[in-house]
Amino acid sequence: MISNVLFRVEGGAETELEISANESLLDAAKKAGIAIDAPCSGNGACGKCRVKVIEGKVESENQRFISPDDYADGWRLACASRAESDVAVLVPAAAGAYKNRIKVTELQTVRDKAAFERLRGELRDMGYLGSALGTQDSGIELLSIDIGQPSPDDPLADRERLVRYIAEKLRSRSVGTVDLSLYALRKLPRILRESRFACTCVLREETGGEYRVLDLFPAGEAPVMAGLAIDIGTTTVAAVLVDIQTGEVLAAGSGGNGQIRYGADVINRIIESTRPGGLERLRKAISEDSVIPLVRGLCDSAGVPLEQIYRAAIAANTTMTHLFLGVYADNIRLEPYVPAFFQAGRLRCVDAGLAVHPDAELIMAPAVGSYVGGDISAGVFSSMIFKKKTYSLFIDLGTNGELVFGNDEFLISCACSAGPAFEGGDISCGMRATDGAVEACRIDEATMEPTLTVIGNGKPVGLCGSGLIDIIGELFRCGIINARGKFVREGKRIHRDEYGMGTYTIAQNLLITEGDIDNFIRAKGAIFSAIRTMLAMLDFSMEAIEEVYISGGIGSGINVEGAIRIGMLPKLPSERYHYIGNTSLYGAYAMAVSCGAAGRIAEIAQGLTYLELSAHASYMDEFIAACFLPHTNGALFT
Amino acid sequence: MISNVLFRVEGGAETELEISANESLLDAAKKAGIAIDAPCSGNGACGKCRVKVIEGKVESENQRFISPDDYADGWRLACASRAESDVAVLVPAAAGAYKNRIKVTELQTVRDKAAFERLRGELRDMGYLGSALGTQDSGIELLSIDIGQPSPDDPLADRERLVRYIAEKLRSRSVGTVDLSLYALRKLPRILRESRFACTCVLREETGGEYRVLDLFPAGEAPVMAGLAIDIGTTTVAAVLVDIQTGEVLAAGSGGNGQIRYGADVINRIIESTRPGGLERLRKAISEDSVIPLVRGLCDSAGVPLEQIYRAAIAANTTMTHLFLGVYADNIRLEPYVPAFFQAGRLRCVDAGLAVHPDAELIMAPAVGSYVGGDISAGVFSSMIFKKKTYSLFIDLGTNGELVFGNDEFLISCACSAGPAFEGGDISCGMRATDGAVEACRIDEATMEPTLTVIGNGKPVGLCGSGLIDIIGELFRCGIINARGKFVREGKRIHRDEYGMGTYTIAQNLLITEGDIDNFIRAKGAIFSAIRTMLAMLDFSMEAIEEVYISGGIGSGINVEGAIRIGMLPKLPSERYHYIGNTSLYGAYAMAVSCGAAGRIAEIAQGLTYLELSAHASYMDEFIAACFLPHTNGALFT
Repeated sequence: MISNVLFRVEGGAETELEISANESLLDAAKKAGIAIDAPCSGNGACGKCRVKVIEGKVESENQRFISPDDYADGWRLACASRAESDVAVLVPAAAGAYKNRIKVTELQTVRDKAAFERLRGELRDMGYLGSALGTQDSGIELLSIDIGQPSPDDPLADRERLVRYIAEKLRSRSVGTVDLSLYALRKLPRILRESRFACTCVLREETGGEYRVLDLFPAGEAPVMAGLAIDIGTTTVAAVLVDIQTGEVLAAGSGGNGQIRYGADVINRIIESTRPGGLERLRKAISEDSVIPLVRGLCDSAGVPLEQIYRAAIAANTTMTHLFLGVYADNIRLEPYVPAFFQAGRLRCVDAGLAVHPDAELIMAPAVGSYVGGDISAGVFSSMIFKKKTYSLFIDLGTNGELVFGNDEFLISCACSAGPAFEGGDISCGMRATDGAVEACRIDEATMEPTLTVIGNGKPVGLCGSGLIDIIGELFRCGIINARGKFVREGKRIHRDEYGMGTYTIAQNLLITEGDIDNFIRAKGAIFSAIRTMLAMLDFSMEAIEEVYISGGIGSGINVEGAIRIGMLPKLPSERYHYIGNTSLYGAYAMAVSCGAAGRIAEIAQGLTYLELSAHASYMDEFIAACFLPHTNGALFT
Repeated sequence: MISNVLFRVEGGAETELEISANESLLDAAKKAGIAIDAPCSGNGACGKCRVKVIEGKVESENQRFISPDDYADGWRLACASRAESDVAVLVPAAAGAYKNRIKVTELQTVRDKAAFERLRGELRDMGYLGSALGTQDSGIELLSIDIGQPSPDDPLADRERLVRYIAEKLRSRSVGTVDLSLYALRKLPRILRESRFACTCVLREETGGEYRVLDLFPAGEAPVMAGLAIDIGTTTVAAVLVDIQTGEVLAAGSGGNGQIRYGADVINRIIESTRPGGLERLRKAISEDSVIPLVRGLCDSAGVPLEQIYRAAIAANTTMTHLFLGVYADNIRLEPYVPAFFQAGRLRCVDAGLAVHPDAELIMAPAVGSYVGGDISAGVFSSMIFKKKTYSLFIDLGTNGELVFGNDEFLISCACSAGPAFEGGDISCGMRATDGAVEACRIDEATMEPTLTVIGNGKPVGLCGSGLIDIIGELFRCGIINARGKFVREGKRIHRDEYGMGTYTIAQNLLITEGDIDNFIRAKGAIFSAIRTMLAMLDFSMEAIEEVYISGGIGSGINVEGAIRIGMLPKLPSERYHYIGNTSLYGAYAMAVSCGAAGRIAEIAQGLTYLELSAHASYMDEFIAACFLPHTNGALFT
């Protein structure tokens, strides 16, 4: 049987097509080019592909993720629904929110503007960013040159004349050779003649006192020398376009990691990468589908041509770093867990398919090991714990969690399999911390009615990490769920399916299931047990932790008391906790604007000791004990 | 009126299409994708687009280049012919010979095999090419490394482990950093695990003691490290694929310069390059239409993958160098004749669109000035005149002519506007020195019958440089033409058109016109007057020239006595003359296999003094006196 399906995208266009009886509505949407997130690949496991049938008859196998009210309203999982007549289907605007919607914002709306300002100050204090021209540590500078008109008596070629004048102008430094990139050479003859043989050079200092003219502009122009800082997370890609000279953020943006369709965590991505053509598929998914459109968006927003990006710095976990560069990552998941590289070496952006200035460097933050990547080296730098006397704990809540403990004398790192819950993965109502995400929540104990804080102040469409921590903390505080995360109260917001599995309706078309709560409990248990085990291995008590720095793109920050209440974080005075945002991105920013900072991050990576938690006998016991709200030993949190 | 045209390509396929009354047969051939050379762009000026009408009626405006016998046989210029009925047209196999037919040959059939052998010997003597592994000056070497299996106790990443072992193995040298190209990094994890953690590295020494692993192969493999040497002439592109280690030529080939459709000489090319989109058109014409197919052909012939080319060296005149790199060349023809660059600097092949190994260097032979290019710097090197005590004259007969005079103490260069005659340009029956070209000729004084030597021993289809010099020398010796190049005898091979302009029929469908002879006389006059003026400016007599080295792709060599007889070369004992082949290509070869040789060529370019002939008052008088056979002062040649 062939049915006609009309898709009506909320706030968008209508598309009509024919489908056969064995095709799901999700298949039909794919054919029609309509974005509907389905990170579980349409297996009915993630509950994200909700659509509303507004006309016609649909047969749906799976109702687990749909509340009875929503079901009555016509909401169904697209992956589990087949048309039994001609149908009309509403696709909510948020259907593609988890995956790959790129959002570029100007600086004033950047949530972490304050973090960049703080970091700029710190880089200045450390001598990594100058306040005046020519004093910065960026390795790239502007130089105005007047080379005079050639004549029959002085017929030196344009390039050789320019090189001679640059060497003369820089004679106080020990200048080796001066060279031009082909890009600059191609511009040279026209610019000299348009500009009376004067010009502004973008000059990069290379190793060994060599200088390279990357670009040329007519005399008097003060072009932006742009740098790119990118954090490639397993779930989210975030980037800023910066002015290399001043450190100013010109544009900021984020989007989903396009690899999400090949699995929510790094292990599934690695498995997919070993299939025929898989490595290139994954490389393209992150590069061409995610990073490149994001970079274009940043440049458009800031009005900076792609070719004026002279350096890019990327921080990412070890698997993402490999897959972005198209390097086999399979040994990361095979004993003895040896990646292909810690440091990527000297690369150009074009080597990795990033079509910015053809001679732009690409700096990848160096990894410590297979499960402690460049995102952590970069994050430790921007947390500044490496130069503090106090014992600090750095917690990165991304897809998986990584911990670093130490001070200016030693730094120890470890990784735990927290999974992607903090970034909205493995959670049916989860989403990235972007417009429509519930980032905070308060539940009235008596009525069980929630009060939500939504990013962008619009309709709530999902939960980001901070919202998830909040809502589970509130459900627990109000006695709606018990220590095992099971629903123990009844009410109009509580529903149970045929198997007795409960759900709580947060808002229309937004509910949290016992499965979601279970996934979250395992994630928070992994974090807490890792902290316990790590400190035990180092023979430190929990109380020895003087400061805790939490990073990650989990939303507005973290409700520390709530997180302690559910046994995610150790019970320490709340003033010791600091939510410091996306430190991986900040570290990439530091590498983009300062060669000294990039060198320091490489030193941090080399100095970080990696601790394998599974080598500790009691780690598994710790984990099991932590998989309760708050813990089998509740006294730890009160 | 619409007519049907059937093209039958000699030894090829048939193609049929419809044309309208105002389209020429040349237009029709273009539409049908059939290659017919027309370097004059179809203006009826070059006489190269001959086709034979075998059926139907054609109206032809121009009969100047067709002998009466050939005309009677149906031969016409395609550009000047329009169909007046349905027609069938034979396209001779040689119709596309001038332009862009790429020919790849194996070493044994390479005409200049001896020249390469001589040069290899000289490079060895100079220490630029080693006979044993590891002793050569190529800057690229193979290194076998066994890095041992990683373990949980030694979980260093593959790259860092390899780098450590390389640094250890090279510890006798002062090794700075060791880095990997991304290309090698991508191969690293698989090769190590396929090959028990041993491998063969292609290692390049960079500046400042840095080393870069360009490529990796399983242990025990001895891969070819290939280099590419290319001579980009205005008319012809010649290239060899070489083994960088041994200097062995793996494949050789040549083809036309695809820019020929934009004009036969550099001035017309530059003019075209200044039109909208022209620079990119010309860059593509030489790169994508000429160099890249030739390089592919060489690699196919030698069975070497493109990615195993680790270095390319190119020698070309200044205009070709600019256009190949996509750099504006317009100032080359505008006072004060300042090119954009002499040295192109450090480039990678991929920068110029040459998709060989992504980290392969591209070395461009440096120019001396706008009209003495890298082909001359490279040519002077391979002639070895720069290290001889004797006064030598180096003559490059390409499209235009360049002269260098001097010894191991000084070298002076100049250029003269000889035009493209020596490479078959501006000559209706001219062609490149490839199959079918008449390369030598003898005419019986009594019968006026010619005896021809044809490259490839097949049917004669045109004259290459050496054949042209020969035939004009013979026509003059036999009294068939006079000192002004006009036909003064009658016979069955002599024809005259309605204006009295004579032609001599060399073979069926091959004739030489008074216009051709006139163009040749101006070319040889330019060479001879340049030699005279140059020596006069240096206050040397002709007799002071102890050796003359003639280079260029003119054919089998040069009949020196014939060339002296017609006043092209000075009257010197014939043992002083040496035809040394395509020295630009040989110089490129030296740069491809030896960093030392490349450095020496750069020194030669810097040391070459350029002499502007037009600055000499009597240069024009000299030229006019030399535009006779042999000269107004015949005593100079007897």
